[in-house]
Amino acid sequence: MALQTGQPLPDWSVERWFGHAGLQLADLRGRVVAIEAFQMLCPGCVSHGLPQAQRIRDTFAADDVVVLGLHTVFEHHAAMQPHALEAFLHEYRIRFPVGVDSPSAEGTPETMRRYGLRGTPSLLLVDRAGRLRAHHFGAVPDLRVGAEIAALVGEGGGVEVTDDGAREPGGAREPGGIGCGLEGCG
Amino acid sequence: MALQTGQPLPDWSVERWFGHAGLQLADLRGRVVAIEAFQMLCPGCVSHGLPQAQRIRDTFAADDVVVLGLHTVFEHHAAMQPHALEAFLHEYRIRFPVGVDSPSAEGTPETMRRYGLRGTPSLLLVDRAGRLRAHHFGAVPDLRVGAEIAALVGEGGGVEVTDDGAREPGGAREPGGIGCGLEGCG
Amino acid sequence: MALQTGQPLPDWSVERWFGHAGLQLADLRGRVVAIEAFQMLCPGCVSHGLPQAQRIRDTFAADDVVVLGLHTVFEHHAAMQPHALEAFLHEYRIRFPVGVDSPSAEGTPETMRRYGLRGTPSLLLVDRAGRLRAHHFGAVPDLRVGAEIAALVGEGGGVEVTDDGAREPGGAREPGGIGCGLEGCG
Amino acid sequence: MALQTGQPLPDWSVERWFGHAGLQLADLRGRVVAIEAFQMLCPGCVSHGLPQAQRIRDTFAADDVVVLGLHTVFEHHAAMQPHALEAFLHEYRIRFPVGVDSPSAEGTPETMRRYGLRGTPSLLLVDRAGRLRAHHFGAVPDLRVGAEIAALVGEGGGVEVTDDGAREPGGAREPGGIGCGLEGCG
Repeated sequence: MALQTGQPLPDWSVERWFGHAGLQLADLRGRVVAIEAFQMLCPGCVSHGLPQAQRIRDTFAADDVVVLGLHTVFEHHAAMQPHALEAFLHEYRIRFPVGVDSPSAEGTPETMRRYGLRGTPSLLLVDRAGRLRAHHFGAVPDLRVGAEIAALVGEGGGVEVTDDGAREPGGAREPGGIGCGLEGCG
Repeated sequence: MALQTGQPLPDWSVERWFGHAGLQLADLRGRVVAIEAFQMLCPGCVSHGLPQAQRIRDTFAADDVVVLGLHTVFEHHAAMQPHALEAFLHEYRIRFPVGVDSPSAEGTPETMRRYGLRGTPSLLLVDRAGRLRAHHFGAVPDLRVGAEIAALVGEGGGVEVTDDGAREPGGAREPGGIGCGLEGCG
Repeated sequence: MALQTGQPLPDWSVERWFGHAGLQLADLRGRVVAIEAFQMLCPGCVSHGLPQAQRIRDTFAADDVVVLGLHTVFEHHAAMQPHALEAFLHEYRIRFPVGVDSPSAEGTPETMRRYGLRGTPSLLLVDRAGRLRAHHFGAVPDLRVGAEIAALVGEGGGVEVTDDGAREPGGAREPGGIGCGLEGCG
Repeated sequence: MALQTGQPLPDWSVERWFGHAGLQLADLRGRVVAIEAFQMLCPGCVSHGLPQAQRIRDTFAADDVVVLGLHTVFEHHAAMQPHALEAFLHEYRIRFPVGVDSPSAEGTPETMRRYGLRGTPSLLLVDRAGRLRAHHFGAVPDLRVGAEIAALVGEGGGVEVTDDGAREPGGAREPGGIGCGLEGCG
C-alpha cells in the first residue's frame, strides 16, 4: 500500500551509495527532498525520470532542494547489480547521489516496499519537515513538478515576509527573475 | 528600459481582444497573471512560447493563475494584422484570451513600450497584488516557470497556515498530489 | 481527384515566385523534384512539412534533387496573401524557391486543383522524366522520404554501372559514405 | 584501421545470438544488410542508434533489407554481459536479431576489431553482394540513411527496368507511394 502523503517518510534502507557516503533522511531535515526511484534498464527512467531529476537539481538551489536517486530493482536483478549501476551512472553522467535499495528475498527491495512504490520511475517529494507530500508514478510534466517543488520550498525558511507583506521566494531565482528583493521590491 | 520587477505593472493598451471582451489588469487583482507577449510570425513564439503558455493554463487552477496572450507586433506589421491573428489563433487552437497591443506611429506598439519588452517571446509574471515579478525574454525551461508561478501562487490566499505550521499550497493540486489537506496532513 | 502517380505532372500555375523568377517544371527535366505544398498558417506545415523540405534540400545534391515550395492557400485567404508569405519566409528562413499557387474564384487555388491535393502539407515527388511518382498528405517519416527520393535519383544519370556491376549512387554522398567510387570500390 | 568501403565485409564473430540462431553474412547474400553496432549502456545508442535501426526495419521490406544488432562491448565488460543484454533487449523491445561480438583478451571484441569500428553507435551498410558500402560513427540523420539504403536496394533485383525505361523501386513502397507499377506507370 502506498504511503499516505502528509505522513513522515520512513528512512530508506540503502545497501550502498554512489556519489555520497551514508546519507540519512534526518540529515536533510530543513530541505525539500526529491527522490527519483528508478531502474537502470527501465526505458521511461532513462528517457524521462532521470533527465528530469537532473533538471530539478540544476534548477533549484542546493540549500533548498536535494535530489537523490534510489535504485529500486524489482526485476532482472542479475542485470542490475551495483557494479552495473556504477557503469550506468558514469555513462549517463548522473551527478546526484544514488542509493541502492536493499534487496529482499521476495524480489521487491526493502525501501520500495516501505514506501509502497508501484514501479519505476517514481518521484517522491518530501517537505522540509520530512513528510511525504507528493508521490508520482510515471511521467509528470516539468511545469507541474516545478510548481510542486516550489510550493514546498516556499513553506520553509526560503520565504521571508517583509513589512509590506511581500515575500521573497527561496528557489529558482536569477537576476531579473522572480526575486523582488534584489530588484527593489518591498 | 525594462520595467523593474517589484513595481506595479501598468495596465496594457489593447485595441482588440480575442477570446474575451475588454479585460483590465485591475480585474485580475488577487490572481497571478502570466502574460505571453508574442508575434504570430515569430518562430520561437510558435515553437516554444505559446505552447508553454497553453501548458501553464492547463496546469494551474484558473482561480489562481490567469494566462493572457499579448500580440506585440513590432515588425512585418502588414502581415500580422488582427484579421490574420484571428486565423492564426484558430489554426493553432489558442484557448486563452489574446489582446492586440495598440499600434503606435514608431512601430513598437504601446504596451510593449510601456513594459520595456526586448522582443518576442517574452513572458511576464504578475503577482496577486499586480506587481511585475518576473520578466523573461526567449525560451525559459518549464521547470523554472512552474516554480516561479507556484511561488507567486503561494504568496496569496492559496496558502493556509494551519495550527501545526503545515500549509496547503493552492496550485497544481491533484488527488495523491502535493496537497496534504486532502490526504490527512495537518 | 488526385493525379495518378506514374503520369506526367502538369505544370503549376504560379502567380508569383519568392527566391526565384519564373520557374517551369520543364526547366527541371532531368532532375528529381520535391514539391512541398503548404500554407503559412498550417501548424503541421510549420512543424513538419517545411523543416523536412529544408532537410531534403540540405541532404541531396542540387544537381539531383530540386526542392520547391508551393503556397496553396485554400482557407483564410486574406491572412495569407503574398506580402504576408514574404514575411513568413523571411522569419522562418526558408531557403528554397516558393511559388504562390494562382487563386481561383472557388477558393481552391489552381495548381492544388490540377494536382488533386487533399490539403496541406502535401509532398509530391516527381521523377527525372517529369512524372509524379509519390504523393503524400500529412506527415511522412524522414527515413521513408529519403528512400523514395534516392530511388528516383537512382533512376537517372546519377547511377553509373561500372565494369564489375558496381554502381555509384548519385545522391547523399560524403567522404566515407555510400559512394564506393571514391573509396576504392570497383 | 577502418575497413574500406567497397570491400567485401568479413564475416562477424558472434558468441551468441538473441532473436536468431546462428546467422552468417553469407546467408544474407542478395539482401542489403544494416548492422547497428551498439553497447547497451551507451546513451547515444539508446537514444539514437537503436531506435533508428528499428525504424529501418519497419520501413523497408524484409526481402530487401535485413537489420542486425551487434553488441560490441569495449568498456564496462562486467556490466554488459549477455544475460544483462537479454534483459535490455526485452525492456527496450528490440525486435531484430542481436549478436554478441566475441570478446578478446585485449578488451576490444573480435568483430569490432575486424571491421575497424571507432566506437558506438556505428552503422554499417552492406550491399546485396556482401560489400561494405557505408560506415557511420555517431548520429546520422534518417533522411540520409534512408537515401543510402534505398540506393543499395536499387542496385539489385529490386529494380526492374521496363520497356519504356521506367523502373519500379524495390523498397519502402506503399499504396499511393513511389511505386509506379501499381499505379499505372509504364
